[in-house]
Amino acid sequence: MHINIKRLQSRISEMGKIGALKGGGVTRLSLSNEDKAARDLLKKWMIQAGLEVKIDQIGNMFGLRKGKNDLPGIMTGSHLDTVGEGGLYDGSLGVLAGLELIETLNDKGIETERSVILANFTNEEGVRFTPDMVGSCVFSGQYKLKEAYQAISMDGSKTSLESELHRIGYKGELHCGDLQVAAFIELHIEQGPVLEMEKLDIGVVENLQGISWTAFDLKGESNHAGTTPMALRKDAGLVAMKIGAYVKTLVNEIGGNQVGTVGKIEFGPNLINVVPGSAKITVDLRNTDNARLTLAEEKLLRFAEKTAAAEGVEILMERLVRFNPVIFDDGICQWIEQAAQQIGLSQKRMYSGAGHDAQMLAKVCPTAMIFVPSEKGISHNPKEFTPIDKIETGANVLLTTVLALVQK
Amino acid sequence: MHINIKRLQSRISEMGKIGALKGGGVTRLSLSNEDKAARDLLKKWMIQAGLEVKIDQIGNMFGLRKGKNDLPGIMTGSHLDTVGEGGLYDGSLGVLAGLELIETLNDKGIETERSVILANFTNEEGVRFTPDMVGSCVFSGQYKLKEAYQAISMDGSKTSLESELHRIGYKGELHCGDLQVAAFIELHIEQGPVLEMEKLDIGVVENLQGISWTAFDLKGESNHAGTTPMALRKDAGLVAMKIGAYVKTLVNEIGGNQVGTVGKIEFGPNLINVVPGSAKITVDLRNTDNARLTLAEEKLLRFAEKTAAAEGVEILMERLVRFNPVIFDDGICQWIEQAAQQIGLSQKRMYSGAGHDAQMLAKVCPTAMIFVPSEKGISHNPKEFTPIDKIETGANVLLTTVLALVQK
Repeated sequence: MHINIKRLQSRISEMGKIGALKGGGVTRLSLSNEDKAARDLLKKWMIQAGLEVKIDQIGNMFGLRKGKNDLPGIMTGSHLDTVGEGGLYDGSLGVLAGLELIETLNDKGIETERSVILANFTNEEGVRFTPDMVGSCVFSGQYKLKEAYQAISMDGSKTSLESELHRIGYKGELHCGDLQVAAFIELHIEQGPVLEMEKLDIGVVENLQGISWTAFDLKGESNHAGTTPMALRKDAGLVAMKIGAYVKTLVNEIGGNQVGTVGKIEFGPNLINVVPGSAKITVDLRNTDNARLTLAEEKLLRFAEKTAAAEGVEILMERLVRFNPVIFDDGICQWIEQAAQQIGLSQKRMYSGAGHDAQMLAKVCPTAMIFVPSEKGISHNPKEFTPIDKIETGANVLLTTVLALVQK
Repeated sequence: MHINIKRLQSRISEMGKIGALKGGGVTRLSLSNEDKAARDLLKKWMIQAGLEVKIDQIGNMFGLRKGKNDLPGIMTGSHLDTVGEGGLYDGSLGVLAGLELIETLNDKGIETERSVILANFTNEEGVRFTPDMVGSCVFSGQYKLKEAYQAISMDGSKTSLESELHRIGYKGELHCGDLQVAAFIELHIEQGPVLEMEKLDIGVVENLQGISWTAFDLKGESNHAGTTPMALRKDAGLVAMKIGAYVKTLVNEIGGNQVGTVGKIEFGPNLINVVPGSAKITVDLRNTDNARLTLAEEKLLRFAEKTAAAEGVEILMERLVRFNPVIFDDGICQWIEQAAQQIGLSQKRMYSGAGHDAQMLAKVCPTAMIFVPSEKGISHNPKEFTPIDKIETGANVLLTTVLALVQK
């Protein structure tokens, strides 16, 4: 059994018109007018496909294709919101491929033992409201609905998430988490270069990196670059750069799949001939192994403190984000592997370096993800692209996997 | 013989009212209305002191106290323009202490063999028009008057240096460089912490650092901090930070009085979870020894190119500024030393880490500088401060030195 790639492709393209940008790509921020239009279109398609549409209190949308038995359902889906100047595939692919597999079941007149549930989660990207993945986070009981409601829009409009949900008509009545789910499978683009580089069709995502974001705030003394002898300096910028250069060394020391990034740096006053009196730097560390990630954090802090002390610079550390790694369900991973094998695709087990709604769902049910290649690993960018044949194979793996699980 | 510190202090304070800021300090940008008012006040004082006032074509002001003989004169002075939010002493001290020594000669009725010439040079700071030190630079024949005239104001008003000179009435007729000068001595605040730290009264400035400013422009690839394996990254930010951290190592390797500063850094897109696709960094290297400065430049470039290549990052180097070190006249330095010794002051030979008009005058006549301590080395700042007793000793050293030279 195969999905209808033409129908899927035309829906990706129709969805891509909502919030479309001149040069390609889309901006469809969560709970914006564009998000409302995307939700309305999905709702129309869900109803056309005969699904029972339910909206929960945090605005998550569910389309139920009832099974023969009243067992917990098999859920699939992702999100329709995007970052500013995002692509056509991040999120949308998972939702629309889920819809497509339901259409395929309809076309073939297949009745299933369990229900299939298509999900579109609220505010995965976290661009307009924090935190990100808030829909799946509240759904899985890891964040309070009340707190989520109070988030204020970062676009300066001072509206809250709750009032925006109400305004666009997606503050539903279903109690968050009330749906019974037996398993969750999310199809997503990799957003990294690994599958393309290794010429593989499918990534079976068995875990998700833990994330540690640290900000260092350094206070030294601004001084004249010519008149201040080296020994009398308190160079906050130098300390920041030494910490930044150390991150690569640290990653090598920790080994495994540790990665580390210094994406952001700021000097004050940031003038060519002034010793920086202040500097800020952020360090992003990720690992699927929590013990190693913790060790990396400890070593980083020790190095930073030692370096700052040696330069006479005051250091403040702030942990901005700390997520534990998520281990997906090995059973679901095996079902995905079997599906890919059955279709004759090349595949590998891998980890996700980005956050996804699946990491929240993993708390409440067996969960795993299916990755398809991203051209050059580009994502959160209008140039985000996955070739149509890879979309087709990904959607077919999703179909085969869900079909297997839904009959159990 | 001693200067009259009360008169000098009251003049520093009166000059400090022109362009005064609420919280202290002054803004008196070159050729602004404030600069005109400062010039007018100086001209009034010069005339009151019986000086013959001459303005040259670049707006440098000279006050001549004629000697008995028609020999080249002994010149002293500095500048009255300031940076934005500057202090009361940088520049003004040298001009007003020069005026004070002339007043002292007048008070005592002393006739001199040579003329004493008091100078106020145009646009030393280079904030409103580039280049800096343009008045002394044109005076000493190192920059063309015509080019200097064409400089456009950086305040957005699109007026030229020439039209501003004309507007404020200081486009003089004296041909630049037509004054014959036997020696130039400039009294200035140190703008660094060395004299204060070492509890010394006087710095005898024997040379001035050469300056090399280099900008590195790095192009890598922006990538997701979670999904991009370390081996596939082209991290422009990492290369910038490695170069920046190396500058301190380089300074230690070069030794001597080498200093090095990374004052400015910028990442693109500068986001916590994005591998920087671009980075810019500047390196300020200074040394009084030109051969060592050149070696430092070469080593820096080799390290930068090697590091960029290892990370797969493209590198562009631009040399923004390169000034050779200036060696002042040892004979004048000895006269200053003798004067300080005669008065019973503590002193040391030192270099200047900042640029001064004296470096331009050194091209046309024996030149040296006298430094007095700057509290905490703070300068270009309303908090710039030199205690009154240090101003008095500095002005007395200037008087004694000029008096010795003017009778030869």
